[in-house]
Amino acid sequence: MDSIISNINKFFESRVRLGIMSVLTVQSKAEFNHLKEILNLTDGNLASHLRVLESRGYISVNKKFEGRKPKTNYFATNEGKNAFQEHLNALEELIKGQKF
Amino acid sequence: MDSIISNINKFFESRVRLGIMSVLTVQSKAEFNHLKEILNLTDGNLASHLRVLESRGYISVNKKFEGRKPKTNYFATNEGKNAFQEHLNALEELIKGQKF
Repeated sequence: MDSIISNINKFFESRVRLGIMSVLTVQSKAEFNHLKEILNLTDGNLASHLRVLESRGYISVNKKFEGRKPKTNYFATNEGKNAFQEHLNALEELIKGQKF
Repeated sequence: MDSIISNINKFFESRVRLGIMSVLTVQSKAEFNHLKEILNLTDGNLASHLRVLESRGYISVNKKFEGRKPKTNYFATNEGKNAFQEHLNALEELIKGQKF
């Protein structure tokens, strides 16, 4: 049965994952260290949430070297962008209280 | 240090608690069975989240009898309303991506 919260995506309940997806839908890509800084997280915490989003197919990763420095960039996939937009729509609808 | 997610309230990460607070800020009060139906939850799950919100001071409870029937009504406290509003503001700011 549908309820007023059933379209809220449990993957995005975590504020860290919400933050990651927000950054990756505003910017086309973001580097690990940029995400770490903007979200104020430890390496381990950020990496763990990125793995969850990647395993769900919501983000993808691109590793390359710039000179000698390794750069790890993250992107939102189309599936991730769509899922995030649906989540925001569900939040908006819930907050407006249209269905009560 | 402040980050773009630090004003997102961890108490409201759960979509159930988000749903409860949304209902209780749109309606002045809601009965246990109404919340259970509108959020499509089991008694145990709803009761557990209500206890968390009550222990945090975000909602209060009023139990009375209407005839022979016990009625349990829930209200958002002023503290709860303020905290929820701040949470929504933080979500809005994050989603707008103003700070990236």
